[in-house]
Amino acid sequence: MVLFAKMQKLVHADDFLFRGLHLMGNTSNDVGSNATTVAVAQLPGLNTLGISMARIDFAPMGINPPHTHPRATEILTVNEGRILVGFITSNPENRLITKVLEKGDVFVFPQGLIHFQKNLGHEYAIAIAGLSSQNPGVITIANVVFGSNPDIVGDILAKAFQVDINVIYQIQSKF
Amino acid sequence: MVLFAKMQKLVHADDFLFRGLHLMGNTSNDVGSNATTVAVAQLPGLNTLGISMARIDFAPMGINPPHTHPRATEILTVNEGRILVGFITSNPENRLITKVLEKGDVFVFPQGLIHFQKNLGHEYAIAIAGLSSQNPGVITIANVVFGSNPDIVGDILAKAFQVDINVIYQIQSKF
Amino acid sequence: MVLFAKMQKLVHADDFLFRGLHLMGNTSNDVGSNATTVAVAQLPGLNTLGISMARIDFAPMGINPPHTHPRATEILTVNEGRILVGFITSNPENRLITKVLEKGDVFVFPQGLIHFQKNLGHEYAIAIAGLSSQNPGVITIANVVFGSNPDIVGDILAKAFQVDINVIYQIQSKF
Amino acid sequence: MVLFAKMQKLVHADDFLFRGLHLMGNTSNDVGSNATTVAVAQLPGLNTLGISMARIDFAPMGINPPHTHPRATEILTVNEGRILVGFITSNPENRLITKVLEKGDVFVFPQGLIHFQKNLGHEYAIAIAGLSSQNPGVITIANVVFGSNPDIVGDILAKAFQVDINVIYQIQSKF
Amino acid sequence: MVLFAKMQKLVHADDFLFRGLHLMGNTSNDVGSNATTVAVAQLPGLNTLGISMARIDFAPMGINPPHTHPRATEILTVNEGRILVGFITSNPENRLITKVLEKGDVFVFPQGLIHFQKNLGHEYAIAIAGLSSQNPGVITIANVVFGSNPDIVGDILAKAFQVDINVIYQIQSKF
Amino acid sequence: MVLFAKMQKLVHADDFLFRGLHLMGNTSNDVGSNATTVAVAQLPGLNTLGISMARIDFAPMGINPPHTHPRATEILTVNEGRILVGFITSNPENRLITKVLEKGDVFVFPQGLIHFQKNLGHEYAIAIAGLSSQNPGVITIANVVFGSNPDIVGDILAKAFQVDINVIYQIQSKF
Repeated sequence: MVLFAKMQKLVHADDFLFRGLHLMGNTSNDVGSNATTVAVAQLPGLNTLGISMARIDFAPMGINPPHTHPRATEILTVNEGRILVGFITSNPENRLITKVLEKGDVFVFPQGLIHFQKNLGHEYAIAIAGLSSQNPGVITIANVVFGSNPDIVGDILAKAFQVDINVIYQIQSKF
Repeated sequence: MVLFAKMQKLVHADDFLFRGLHLMGNTSNDVGSNATTVAVAQLPGLNTLGISMARIDFAPMGINPPHTHPRATEILTVNEGRILVGFITSNPENRLITKVLEKGDVFVFPQGLIHFQKNLGHEYAIAIAGLSSQNPGVITIANVVFGSNPDIVGDILAKAFQVDINVIYQIQSKF
Repeated sequence: MVLFAKMQKLVHADDFLFRGLHLMGNTSNDVGSNATTVAVAQLPGLNTLGISMARIDFAPMGINPPHTHPRATEILTVNEGRILVGFITSNPENRLITKVLEKGDVFVFPQGLIHFQKNLGHEYAIAIAGLSSQNPGVITIANVVFGSNPDIVGDILAKAFQVDINVIYQIQSKF
Repeated sequence: MVLFAKMQKLVHADDFLFRGLHLMGNTSNDVGSNATTVAVAQLPGLNTLGISMARIDFAPMGINPPHTHPRATEILTVNEGRILVGFITSNPENRLITKVLEKGDVFVFPQGLIHFQKNLGHEYAIAIAGLSSQNPGVITIANVVFGSNPDIVGDILAKAFQVDINVIYQIQSKF
Repeated sequence: MVLFAKMQKLVHADDFLFRGLHLMGNTSNDVGSNATTVAVAQLPGLNTLGISMARIDFAPMGINPPHTHPRATEILTVNEGRILVGFITSNPENRLITKVLEKGDVFVFPQGLIHFQKNLGHEYAIAIAGLSSQNPGVITIANVVFGSNPDIVGDILAKAFQVDINVIYQIQSKF
Repeated sequence: MVLFAKMQKLVHADDFLFRGLHLMGNTSNDVGSNATTVAVAQLPGLNTLGISMARIDFAPMGINPPHTHPRATEILTVNEGRILVGFITSNPENRLITKVLEKGDVFVFPQGLIHFQKNLGHEYAIAIAGLSSQNPGVITIANVVFGSNPDIVGDILAKAFQVDINVIYQIQSKF
């Protein structure tokens, strides 16, 4: 807030503007989705203001795989398409809370919970989201767990996921 | 957070869902715009989570008149149309920061500052906004100042706006 | 907090001191009031501490015109005089909550709401206020709406205030 | 914030008003001072708003003995009199930061630090303070350490203050 | 804070006490570890106070599998044993930050990031942790992703983890 | 948070590690206790994360004298020994809330309240604490009140503690 005050004489309108959220992201990838984030790194005027925005594109049948935002709640609305959404509550219930969203539906993913979306339709789908931090972060579970740099040692993951270590090596080789 | 924890066994998916943000709001009013708010009163699952969403519709040449959100920053993107947006910085600079937004542009209105939007086109325009509070509030300046219930006594407004008190009465009669 | 900790060996008593709140502000202006603010810009020791103070002087019949603090609640006490105070709740109620304060009365203006004060007496009046931010900001509604730099285009204000655009030009010319 | 929103139709102006801060507190006590607090218990409209106010009266040579506010920073201005103020920084520096305040001086006591005031004059003195919590709390060091209910066992205090236990018993008997 | 104030006359010492953190948790499970949590549900006096504690026990070679705390940072110290710890930064870096901790080492897992621990020794290991919320929550990644109630549909996970759906079914059958 | 984000490519594992909390602090002092603090000054990775940790050692019959943390709640568990703990509620109740803790007991000291611990046993005792700030601060009451630098003038303390000024001078000479 102090910084904002000092900036008051210096700010440009451009500090508060980001262009391009109408552009479809590139969904030609393994999961068939793409998120375009507008957070403080993209839009400096968000500094100290506790909010950001994102657009999510889905190819037909594409998914936004299970992920969390370590510092934000997400509120999402469907602009185009029919999307299955879900989040899972913390231990010990681990309840899956799920809905099929149509165009115009709004859904909330509470802070830090694992959530996912899937395009149920044969057309591209689009969602717009608000996030309660200027720097929400994204942790894609599979990539972080199986594709970290360097890899998590295989026996930890074998025990965590209760599979043979070769299954872990196989999954790690994909990321 | 405590409440959310206790609710964990009781929550329904419906607590996190709101339907209808694809519907155009009724812009047949004096300003030619309409805001549909999805805050904690409309979507109980937002409780304690610090975010909400809104859709703003603009008739051709319609405006969203100068207003503030007393408890939130707003981040907005244009879904359809061409919109002039602006906010004014605090005293003493009172700088007007303004931009013409096209489809896909994203703009930030910092917490508590007076801001407005105007549809510059001959078609309906649509914007989607995220707000950094589950209960952001809206204060439409003209309505609050000239249409409060009961009215602010006229001489205060005459002095504040430096006009004859009859001008104040005239404006108050409209709200 | 981190900054405060690092400053611990370096702080001077002067960083925590501001002199002059006993001095009457200059109320020879269009509204007949003056606010002397003691925030982080005036008192560096307030940094990170979330509070500030102000003195408001009122000439006889003077007003502190409708304004908001975008980042703070205000608690005010009357040192001298008899003052009408009010704030208006958010949409859609827009209720005017108002009281006549005598010396020693304390009143609260919740965060971000539009509020005003008027000296009801024939003597100078004085109020002291605490604000819940080290950088609360002040937005004087009339000045910001009709006196921004540059001006808000007239047709937006004409529609917002539902008056002829010439009334807008007339008001803008005063600020 | 949610509570405030729900209250919006129900609030009375009286919820935001406290009367009587012009009245001198009773300073006929061992220290010669009195604090009148206007926090959420006295002024329900402060709920969730993060601020409160207090008046401190000092008899000639009276002191407001060393104390802390466990949940607030205090900003104070002198209305009448000449007051010595001080606070002590945390371990290990334990620097005493001190100033003599005249009428109109403003001073800050950072959150949770031990501070005190002393009337240096031969007249009554008055200060007004803002505090950055609706429920700041007051911990008068001597009363809490030597007058708790029940008493802290004497040997702990003897060791803490490095005096004979009979000195502790003597001090405890005063509170 | 308000609640705490009102409770002040009613609180018992028992509200602030939890017994049993010296007891080894039951590590006879698939991962060979156990976390004993002391949060607001176990210790009501923590309400509104923003902190909690946990003990983690590890059987020889046991792991605390990858998990997050959706509302807290964790600071951990090793009481007994030799423990490999790690966390992974957000997208896109997904850097694995890892250390081998000996007795007396302290390590931080920033809010919401996926982290894990593994006992490297042939004895039981013990860690004590502080968490920056009275209700931090725990999300064990494997359990939440593959053992939610009901299951996440298999094709979403197959695509997310880039494995054959039968691998997913196999993992889900373990949870 | 912003800083953390920018640091993401630059952070080392060492930024998140502190070594040595297994080492007994030096309790050969007047009170027979020692606190080893692991806060942001010792562990830079804690920056912005709102938590820290401490180890407290007690010689037989040693005390951790009455003190406060101006910016944190403390949650403490006993690793070894039998410890009397207590805190005192704010004015006006000044209730002493006290418990004898055995190994494995957990106790909470709410933010900013004066608290103390005493080893009741004939062996060394050890406690581990979590604190709800990366920079909690410590204010040892006796040292701050009687050993500040420079001294608080004696008559203020004589009046506060209701003892002869020579008792104050005597206590000040010890610190």
